[in-house]
This record gives sequence, structure tokens and C-alpha cells, in this order.
Amino acid sequence: MTRTVVESKSKTVTIGFDEPFCVIGERINPTGRKKLAAELELGDFSTVEQDALEQVACGAMVLDVNSGAVFTNKMAEDPRYADNNFVEPELMKELVTRIQSIVDVPLCIDSSVPGALQNGLEMAEGRPLLNSVTGEEERLELVLPLVKKYNVPVVAISNDDTGISEDPDVRFAVAKKIVERAADFGIPAHDIVVDPLVMPIGAMATAGHQVFTLVRKLRAELGVNTTCGASNISFGLPHRHGINAAFLPMAIASGMTSAIMNPMRPVEMEAIRAANFLMNNDPNGAAWIGFSRILDAVESGTPYVEASKAAMSSGAGRGGRRGGRRRAG
Amino acid sequence: MTRTVVESKSKTVTIGFDEPFCVIGERINPTGRKKLAAELELGDFSTVEQDALEQVACGAMVLDVNSGAVFTNKMAEDPRYADNNFVEPELMKELVTRIQSIVDVPLCIDSSVPGALQNGLEMAEGRPLLNSVTGEEERLELVLPLVKKYNVPVVAISNDDTGISEDPDVRFAVAKKIVERAADFGIPAHDIVVDPLVMPIGAMATAGHQVFTLVRKLRAELGVNTTCGASNISFGLPHRHGINAAFLPMAIASGMTSAIMNPMRPVEMEAIRAANFLMNNDPNGAAWIGFSRILDAVESGTPYVEASKAAMSSGAGRGGRRGGRRRAG
Repeated sequence: MTRTVVESKSKTVTIGFDEPFCVIGERINPTGRKKLAAELELGDFSTVEQDALEQVACGAMVLDVNSGAVFTNKMAEDPRYADNNFVEPELMKELVTRIQSIVDVPLCIDSSVPGALQNGLEMAEGRPLLNSVTGEEERLELVLPLVKKYNVPVVAISNDDTGISEDPDVRFAVAKKIVERAADFGIPAHDIVVDPLVMPIGAMATAGHQVFTLVRKLRAELGVNTTCGASNISFGLPHRHGINAAFLPMAIASGMTSAIMNPMRPVEMEAIRAANFLMNNDPNGAAWIGFSRILDAVESGTPYVEASKAAMSSGAGRGGRRGGRRRAG
Repeated sequence: MTRTVVESKSKTVTIGFDEPFCVIGERINPTGRKKLAAELELGDFSTVEQDALEQVACGAMVLDVNSGAVFTNKMAEDPRYADNNFVEPELMKELVTRIQSIVDVPLCIDSSVPGALQNGLEMAEGRPLLNSVTGEEERLELVLPLVKKYNVPVVAISNDDTGISEDPDVRFAVAKKIVERAADFGIPAHDIVVDPLVMPIGAMATAGHQVFTLVRKLRAELGVNTTCGASNISFGLPHRHGINAAFLPMAIASGMTSAIMNPMRPVEMEAIRAANFLMNNDPNGAAWIGFSRILDAVESGTPYVEASKAAMSSGAGRGGRRGGRRRAG
């Protein structure tokens, strides 16, 4: 059974075929969040801290930490800030330090900048997930040594130097190449979490079906865990949360074991918690029953994030194995 | 590719691996609906007619017609009414006649009484689905000749004289036996729609996972279409529509091609329509986009059934191939 183990200072999360689906919170990412980027430029980490606390309250088991900020004002004063190799390594250090000082969940160190990955790995307590390597030669040569050196699992995105193929067989071949190259570095398949790449079904009608087929094949033939940027599937469509809330259970039934997603969306989280129960990864439905109390509160008018925070501080809404692991002191 | 063809007077619905999921409306069933049974006893078919119209408006592609009424008052006057072999054949005739006079969708003739099945088959226009045969010897010998004589497809429930097994391998073996026995009668596998039996996950933790595995196996090894009583999965649980709305897409991703269910539940219907799109069985997302207008109306305060009826009469909310098939005159 494939198990990918990630750790924070004191908590272990296992991504695996017989584990609850691993929700990796995507919110801490200044790419496309101008307001957040502007705050970070001013050294203001309040939104990051709030996002960390709220995502964990809503059920994120791992937090993605992306340092891809563009510091527009600083850039105007100092041309070094135009280079992400200059900006991101320092920012990643600060982000990791601050986040792990307020929440105790494993982190996913996410950057396209090798120096930022390195600094994230240095600062992170426990065993973070690295995000990401691709099938691109340069990226393989830069990232796999870090994976080996720090003994961490890594997200492997199935594109290569030729780009993202629309042919799922090509994407499978790229994933296979990454797994094989990792093996050359002594990195086991259970430390590779493949992202088969989710295209929008609005643009490519076969996108959903491709993912389900690929995930089954990746699991059966490479024995790897899988992840994806789930919300991409519904890009540009009306009532997209309804699409996401069907896509996630379908991907889970096909064998997907994690997703990088927004845990602050109740519809998607309800779908995942129901899917965990249906896959027999929620013993006695304890987590579902805890979550249903949050749904009760939402139906009574409490906003989802508030209801989740209240349930967390009262000890409800967790249930199952997670609750059982909590220690005194 | 397995195709199960059902027909009304002028409409054809194909149950198949590359077709939209076939929603079989379950509402016309006096079992457990005391008020409906009492109405039928008085010869009042107004609820049946309303249920027929509303289910079709909400997206039912086939209507189940179950004649399992208990006529308590008549029974007190005339002991013959204590026998369902007396009550159901006449009631089925009346139900089928009335329903097909107001809606033009294929019917699913549903009874445990052979005389009611026979009468339903006699009265139904087109090619109805018969519900059901089991692996019980007596039932096989009674129902398969009707299936052959009327050249109709049949729902095959995977229990036998030993009852319902909790072992999915036994349920698979029962389904296989029915398919083989049907072949002896000259009935092809594509006219058998297997119900692998859905147990409540609240009582059996493996119930969901069992169904997904069984459906994949039934499809791969017997090449049959499948159906189920979907809502049984969530029996007794809080927020059960959330469980159903994850179960259906998971079953669809596993290869399930139809369900007997309540189409008047927006959460489940949203999940199915999203799943159709994700399985590439909704060309250009036309049906999803039509349905999203119904969701818009629901968000603005219109009840789901009313919004569905309004969309139907305006020609929206159908989309795709179904819309294209409509004929003038």
C-alpha cells in the first residue's frame, strides 16, 4: 500500500489509498491575489496568518505555501526585486516561519524558484511536501537533488519540455519518466505524488474522463499517490462549485488521494467528507457526523468558516482517527 | 458498447456506458406512502399524475410505476383485497394507462406480482423496462418468460434464495447466474440491467466501496448496464442528501449507468448533471448550462420543482441531444 508521509512539528499526515483524502489548502498564494501580494510587500502577514488558521479550521490537512509574489513598488526602487530568485527565497523563509508558529500542520513548499524551495525546506519543521518537479530536464536536475537531500516527498506535474500534452498517454509517460528519474536518485515511488494535470472541461470535453482514467492507471501501474489543482476542472463555467463537488468524489472513486484546493468552500468539503465515508476511510462515520453538525450550524445561518472554527475549538467536527491522536499538554 | 433501449410511445431512452446517466423516477410507489395508497384506494390518481409530470420536469428520463398498494378499507369489506395478486394487476393497468396519457417517457413496470407485471407489459406503449427479476428460482421461472415474450429489458437484483449476501463476490455470482439463465431464454446481456444492491453505509462501512467495485466488475466481465436504489446508501444518516450527492458521481465514475431515485431533489440532480458533463456525456455542456439556469432561479427563491417546470415549458434546461430530438407537430 502506497503511503506518502508528511509531517509538521508534531503531526503526521499520511496520503494513501486507504486514508481520508488529503486536502491541501491552496489559499496562501500571492499569484493572482494582488491584495495579498501588496500586503506581503509591506511586510504585513495578517492575511496569511488568517488564511492559515481558517483553512485548518475548515479541514485543510496540509497547507500549501507559495511564495510567488511580485513586489511592484519595491521593483520600481530596486531592480533586483524584478527577479523572483531575489524575492522568493527570503519571502518563503518568512512565510514558513510565521505559518508554523501558529498552526501545527505539515506544509507544502511551493515555488518555481529553487532558492525558495531550498529555504522552505530549511525552515520547515517535520517533513514537508515539495511542490513541484516536472518532466522538464532542467527542473528534474534542480529539484530531485533537493528531494533526495532533505528526504521529502514531491509533487510531480506531468508536463515536460514539450509543454502540457492533451494526450493522457503522453502525460502518463511523463509521470513514469519522473518516477524513474527519481529512482535513479534513490527516491522511492511512494514519495512521488503525481499531478496528472486537470484541464477545464469547458475547453476540453474529455478533461474529466481523462483524469479518472489517468489516476487509475497511475495507481495501478506506478503505485503512486496523486494530487491535482481541482478547481481548474470547472474554469469559466456557471455554478462551478457544483462541477467541483462532483469531480472530487469521482476522482476519489478513481483513486485520487489528495488535491490542492480551497477548503473554505463548504460544497466541495461536504463532497470530500461524504466520499471519505463512502470509501470506508471514515470509521463509523465519525468525521461525517462531526461535519454534519457544522452543516447544521450553516443551515441556521452561521457562516461556514465561523461554524468550522467553533466546531474546532469545541473539539467537534474532527472525529475519527485524527481526534484520537490528540495528546494532552 | 452495451446499450439497453427503452421506449415510450414516441421517445427512446438508451441506457449505456457512453450515454447520460439514466434517472428513473421512483416516486410513483405506494409502498411506504400511506397517503398515496389511500388515494389510490379511492380511485384518486391526482398525486400519481402530479408526480409523473413533476418528475419528468425535474429530469426523470424513465418513470418507475410500482403497484404495491395495500387497500386497508377494501380489505375489511372484501377479503380478496388482502391478496396483492388480486389488487395489483388491475391497479397496474390503471396506473400505466393514466401515466402514459399525460407524459411521453418510457416506463419501468415494477411489482412483485406476476399478474401486475404482465398487465403492465400489456398496457405499456413502446418498450418498457421490467422491474424485476432476482436470482430466486421461482422468480427466474416466472419473470424471464415475460421478458422473452414481450422482448423488454429487465432489472436483475443480485439476491437469491439464500437472501442478500454481504459478500460482493456472492452478489456478483448471483448476477452472473441471472445473465446466464436469461441467455438460456434467448435474452441478451444488454437487456439485463443489474442492481448490485446498495446497503446503508451507516450499517455496513464497506457498502459504498462494494458498489463501486461490483459495478466495475459487472461492466468489465458481464458487459451489463447497472442500476440501484441510490438513496439507500445514506439511510439513517444526518445530511443524507450530501452522501447521496457524492455517492452518485462516484458510482457513475465506476460505470453505473442508471439509478431509481427521486429526481425532485436538486442536490442529487445537480451531482448527476455535473457527472454527465465530467464523463463527456453532455456535449458542449449544453445540459449543464440549461440546468444552471434552473439553479439560478432556485437561488433567486423559486422552488426547484417550479423552476424545473418553467424551464421545461420554455424549452431550456434540456439541452444537448434530447433537445435536438424534439419534433414539430
